Amino acid sequence: MIKTDILIIGAGPTGLFAVFEAGLLKLKCHLIDALPQAGGQCSEIYPKKPIYDIPGFPEVLAGELVNNLMEQIKPFQPGFTLGERADSIEKLEDGSFIVTTNKGTEHHAPIVAIAGGLGSFEPRKPQLENLSKFEDNGVAYMIKDPEVYRNKKVLIAGGGDSALDWSIFLADVASEVTLVHRRNEFRGALDSVEKVQELKNLGKINLITPAEIIELKGEERLSSVVVQKTDSKETVQVDVDNFIPLFGLSPKLGPIADWGLEIEKNAIKVDNALDYQTNIPGVYAIGDVNTYPGKLKLILCGFHEATLMCQSAYQRIFPDKKYVMKYTTVGGVEGFDGSKKEAPKAVVKSID
Amino acid sequence: MIKTDILIIGAGPTGLFAVFEAGLLKLKCHLIDALPQAGGQCSEIYPKKPIYDIPGFPEVLAGELVNNLMEQIKPFQPGFTLGERADSIEKLEDGSFIVTTNKGTEHHAPIVAIAGGLGSFEPRKPQLENLSKFEDNGVAYMIKDPEVYRNKKVLIAGGGDSALDWSIFLADVASEVTLVHRRNEFRGALDSVEKVQELKNLGKINLITPAEIIELKGEERLSSVVVQKTDSKETVQVDVDNFIPLFGLSPKLGPIADWGLEIEKNAIKVDNALDYQTNIPGVYAIGDVNTYPGKLKLILCGFHEATLMCQSAYQRIFPDKKYVMKYTTVGGVEGFDGSKKEAPKAVVKSID
Repeated sequence: MIKTDILIIGAGPTGLFAVFEAGLLKLKCHLIDALPQAGGQCSEIYPKKPIYDIPGFPEVLAGELVNNLMEQIKPFQPGFTLGERADSIEKLEDGSFIVTTNKGTEHHAPIVAIAGGLGSFEPRKPQLENLSKFEDNGVAYMIKDPEVYRNKKVLIAGGGDSALDWSIFLADVASEVTLVHRRNEFRGALDSVEKVQELKNLGKINLITPAEIIELKGEERLSSVVVQKTDSKETVQVDVDNFIPLFGLSPKLGPIADWGLEIEKNAIKVDNALDYQTNIPGVYAIGDVNTYPGKLKLILCGFHEATLMCQSAYQRIFPDKKYVMKYTTVGGVEGFDGSKKEAPKAVVKSID
Repeated sequence: MIKTDILIIGAGPTGLFAVFEAGLLKLKCHLIDALPQAGGQCSEIYPKKPIYDIPGFPEVLAGELVNNLMEQIKPFQPGFTLGERADSIEKLEDGSFIVTTNKGTEHHAPIVAIAGGLGSFEPRKPQLENLSKFEDNGVAYMIKDPEVYRNKKVLIAGGGDSALDWSIFLADVASEVTLVHRRNEFRGALDSVEKVQELKNLGKINLITPAEIIELKGEERLSSVVVQKTDSKETVQVDVDNFIPLFGLSPKLGPIADWGLEIEKNAIKVDNALDYQTNIPGVYAIGDVNTYPGKLKLILCGFHEATLMCQSAYQRIFPDKKYVMKYTTVGGVEGFDGSKKEAPKAVVKSID
């Protein structure tokens, strides 16, 4: 059982920044995210795209923002349960919560902050008869650890940035990379498309277009994939160790919708007049996952909501303590790892 | 008469960021600030101090944050009335406002956003009989344009960073710099104290400590200052063109307190459940100047408040238009100066 002070569901920018604000209050955080790495959409969907409305950054790449936030929260040593989806919540008699993931990992905390963005990103799956049989037995919808594919025969399907970028990356890792797409045209960053063209010309990527996967074969594990050209209807059987359909992710509020929270238009209603708490005391919702009058789904709003949530969480955990806010410029930042950042102190010194 | 869409009172980080959010909505802003430059406290009080709690910046100097914000809002060409204090407000029949400064500059706008921080920073003045007579006639409490002092005889009083930094700066500009402080010890950054020591040894700064100014002399303009050593009680008359007492700034809500706004503990009450509007429709208060349940005086909260204020202002100015928010990552940023920033577009391209 993982124990923490604030259990944060969702490791996007809002959830990450909550770790910092909690840390200033000496509260520890643990984050759960269905994606294999921290950063939410910023890391998974548009890491190389610029954002222009983060205050103080005339321009910042989404991936860079996540890196900065990870650096900022590092002194507060957050825990992570990644690649698992928060599935169920149980309220204990003492008012604390146990949150269990789809893989059975249990987390215990007095405070739960849902920072789930648009929901957990679920992969769009191809319609193939025995697909589920091969899930985790050769079929994966996200690449959690590229090393898994070292010296393996990998077939990727898809025509967007993920399919292009992973084909390029795995061309150096896997023994064989086949890329299948239902059109000849790919949609992505110009340099990614050009790089795939180059690797195809060098024979490092085996390209089959326009084509679709029509059958998966194998005993226990996947052993081959049948690909059909959509023009000629010819089929070819490709021996593979792994099949990775990258058809995009679509956000779903998912199991959280059944936690007894007040939901409005796929978002969780919160008290924006005070602390972004939901109808369940001790459960907060911050960032794009919440809704209230005038709500804007902007990262900068999530930062503010996370901050007020932490103050309220502190009061809930320590009802008798009075917290006096210290500015970081004045008080510095004391990490849980023993690190200390602070402004150079003024000296008092004679001049003679 | 200066005309704009949103008149922002206070050019600190919150007021500056409001310009950006207003700009995305195609609304023009003009800012009034009592200080001679933009940036509020960040520029005036602690430009060289690090801030650790701006989201996405593990560490940023206050002055750097202001520079970044100025760069970020540049495409939206804000107007500035600096070195003037917003003194009075008048509501016209059509619901718009005229705000007049202490120097008589008039501003007309349908929306007023007060982003006044802790108030306008008023200099602490020495107790000297005929001080007010020489104000703007040789006596100044802030340095707006250092060129004013070129080849002049300047006497600075004070023992903190401002006194040290300006003595150093003016040592290269003025023909004579005298620094007077009531103690031998100065309180400031170590390198500033050491630099003043060095300039004193080189004869470029004339240091008189421990001492106080006891009298100002002159006809129309200031011509000399009488300095008394606090130990020996000896006096010395120093011929000067300018006397600049730098005894710190203290924030005062000032004339805004008489605008008919609901005030609580020196801050303006706003509706945090919606749009940070005050009890006067069309007048908003954002950043450290406002108060509501759970309020935290943090820059990052001001950014959020500024953003929601702009949306509400838009609805007030265009009650019949429905605004659909576009993410900057998707829609880019179109400046009023014709500039356009946007993410590189995805291409659709065949691979053959």
